[in-house]
Amino acid sequence: MEISAIVEERSKYLNLLDLVGEEIELKGVVFKVRGLSGFAFILVNAYGTIIQTVYTGEIGETGVKEGCSVVIKGKVSEAKLKDAFVEPKSCEVQINEINVVSSPKELLPFDITKKKLDIGNDLKFDLRYLSMRHPKEKAIFRIQSSLVQGIRSFLIENKFVEIRSPKIVAEGAEGGANIFSMDYFGQKAYLTQSPQFYKEFCVGVFDRVFEIAPVFRAEKHNTNRHINEYTSIDFEFGQIDSFYDILNMEAAMLKHAFEHLKKDVPYELDLLQVEVPDIKTIPALKFWEVKEIIKKEYKIDPKDSFDLAPIEEIKISDYVKKKYDSEFVFITHYPTAKRPFYAMDDAEDPELTVSFDLIFRGVEITTGGQRIHDFDQLVAKMSGRGMNPADFEFFTNAHKYGLPPHGGLGLGLERLTQRLLNVDNIKSATMFPRDMTRLTP
Amino acid sequence: MEISAIVEERSKYLNLLDLVGEEIELKGVVFKVRGLSGFAFILVNAYGTIIQTVYTGEIGETGVKEGCSVVIKGKVSEAKLKDAFVEPKSCEVQINEINVVSSPKELLPFDITKKKLDIGNDLKFDLRYLSMRHPKEKAIFRIQSSLVQGIRSFLIENKFVEIRSPKIVAEGAEGGANIFSMDYFGQKAYLTQSPQFYKEFCVGVFDRVFEIAPVFRAEKHNTNRHINEYTSIDFEFGQIDSFYDILNMEAAMLKHAFEHLKKDVPYELDLLQVEVPDIKTIPALKFWEVKEIIKKEYKIDPKDSFDLAPIEEIKISDYVKKKYDSEFVFITHYPTAKRPFYAMDDAEDPELTVSFDLIFRGVEITTGGQRIHDFDQLVAKMSGRGMNPADFEFFTNAHKYGLPPHGGLGLGLERLTQRLLNVDNIKSATMFPRDMTRLTP
Repeated sequence: MEISAIVEERSKYLNLLDLVGEEIELKGVVFKVRGLSGFAFILVNAYGTIIQTVYTGEIGETGVKEGCSVVIKGKVSEAKLKDAFVEPKSCEVQINEINVVSSPKELLPFDITKKKLDIGNDLKFDLRYLSMRHPKEKAIFRIQSSLVQGIRSFLIENKFVEIRSPKIVAEGAEGGANIFSMDYFGQKAYLTQSPQFYKEFCVGVFDRVFEIAPVFRAEKHNTNRHINEYTSIDFEFGQIDSFYDILNMEAAMLKHAFEHLKKDVPYELDLLQVEVPDIKTIPALKFWEVKEIIKKEYKIDPKDSFDLAPIEEIKISDYVKKKYDSEFVFITHYPTAKRPFYAMDDAEDPELTVSFDLIFRGVEITTGGQRIHDFDQLVAKMSGRGMNPADFEFFTNAHKYGLPPHGGLGLGLERLTQRLLNVDNIKSATMFPRDMTRLTP
Repeated sequence: MEISAIVEERSKYLNLLDLVGEEIELKGVVFKVRGLSGFAFILVNAYGTIIQTVYTGEIGETGVKEGCSVVIKGKVSEAKLKDAFVEPKSCEVQINEINVVSSPKELLPFDITKKKLDIGNDLKFDLRYLSMRHPKEKAIFRIQSSLVQGIRSFLIENKFVEIRSPKIVAEGAEGGANIFSMDYFGQKAYLTQSPQFYKEFCVGVFDRVFEIAPVFRAEKHNTNRHINEYTSIDFEFGQIDSFYDILNMEAAMLKHAFEHLKKDVPYELDLLQVEVPDIKTIPALKFWEVKEIIKKEYKIDPKDSFDLAPIEEIKISDYVKKKYDSEFVFITHYPTAKRPFYAMDDAEDPELTVSFDLIFRGVEITTGGQRIHDFDQLVAKMSGRGMNPADFEFFTNAHKYGLPPHGGLGLGLERLTQRLLNVDNIKSATMFPRDMTRLTP
């Protein structure tokens, strides 16, 4: 037989509003049945939303129950619906015929039709494949998918090429103990902490590159802002005039992604009552300036003088929100001591780097900066730190044979999602979270 | 300071043809310098292609050499260029001013300006970060990036939601010994072989889902069609009427992706002389029918009666090319014995499954099929195979609480790229390949 290469346009059933008065066929999964005397409302999960259908007759006789897959033939009619989960609210489907295609063995162990899924985080994650069926849980990941799409379309429009770096590596990019190791056919190997080295290689090839892929950190933290496997949105690009070009690119990327969200997933944003920031400009403050502000305005003075404590990130967000009406703030010129060996030092003060973090609603979501492109400068900085440049020859070779001035960043997708949707825990913004004790589902 | 959220439109310099007679600024990396008496041609890698610029004066005095990053100010003028790598060929830039922004320490250890990079595969992979700078190597991955984009845009238009399954897992989806293991905070964990279980979970949530992400196979094969870390393009969707819906979706997806390629990367396709198939329909033959054809037409009868040997895949491709003028062929109804426990058996013959492979130019690039959605049927099949369904409760729970009839597939990106571009080895179609002995770069 011959398989056609044309698929039916699925979206034709999406806009029921255009189909009022017409006979349609609807396939979906029964979300909720409200049986009344002689008729029933059947809410059906179909094509991305929950559609109200109306059955005339005794529903008990049809075998239709929650979790069934059904094929409905019916007529679209106008209606005024109130159920928060139903979309569209101005029409419904009058059922002429309903057939059950598959039936669950059991009804769900919790009620996914309630306004809020209140089963606690442990059970929610243990039964993620079921708890995600709640419309508000589902909405989190529908928004996340759209967010990634918005980011990707911005990068592609701006001539970034998508790269694919290996996840099994011989060296960690960040160093330290926070790295998972494994046996690779008798060799010791690691799971990548960051595509940093590969991004820089690829700047030498494509000039502008990005990757949105998993990275792994064996951090022994079990907090509401840590997971051990996360999605890193990485970009890196050459021909920069200053490291501020990187901040500018990120601001534009987020602005574009947020505008994409508003067009793509209004139903889900509304369901979760998400306030999507309207980015105009983002203030950038220098690290030492931030330290001063926090000390002066909030009377807080944590001991670590080379990094910001979580409380400082919260306070500077608060400050910037009041002073600049911005939910984002770039913090620049982090001390050299706390930045990796490939970070470019500030030409005016070698104790500082031309690097930055981006703080969004009190949490750091991005680390980035300009990188050293000159071979001699890189080797000197490595030697100065007691590293042996020969161990990193596979990396420094890219510099030896020429790289343009470049920089980039890594943005944590789950943290961005968490802050955007204002959910309690980064794990709640992760489809299948991994933490120190959680390896399933 | 305030960071703007608007970026300069980079594409304005892409179409030099529109800028003839105008003064422009060009930033890029010097690809080749051809110094002549009193003037020089400088080919510059800029914004995705190689642009010819002309310098009047003694180039030796400027410090410009191959691998330098430069900023050029000049005027676009008409020209007729022949260099295969240069694009556009009908104009060039007359340099008024050229400034060197960064310089390599050394010139590349091989010539990337030659028509073909003939350094052998070992060196090519050892120095991948340099060998990819050759325009033809670079073109492979520029095309691959575009291919992924074409596939993704098809899936998103067709309402598939992008999911993110974990790469560190407690159970392999394929079972067997071909799985990498690791220590996860004192627990034994594995690297995912396939997102299969997670895709099926997510069909119960979103109905249509996809993921394009790395998977890992600890296969001890070192052939030209195996790598140990590859990119799997996975989709899965519900509400199917028959398993042929899945084949139809894949045919449409590939058709869309190939049409996208032709629009997006004509320069690279031309450089590699790629013949992009024009998909109309794709023939589908049943497994036993294929075995008969090969025996009869090619006098080949390999011993494995439940699977196709590589030679059989080559022969059936040849047959289909002649008979149907198609470079693709679906092979359906593989024997139950060789398919995983979650594969749906054929209602007419339980020795067969409603599953398929897709063969492209002699190589299997996809495995897919309809999955069992009914809980009792799944548990019975597992028990019949001597598996303990309780060990897979986290998977079968999704079925217990209701899944629609569904199916999907996994398509190997690198194999697809290799066959499309007709390169010698799957590793040549992998940016940073991993095989039994290769763990770097």
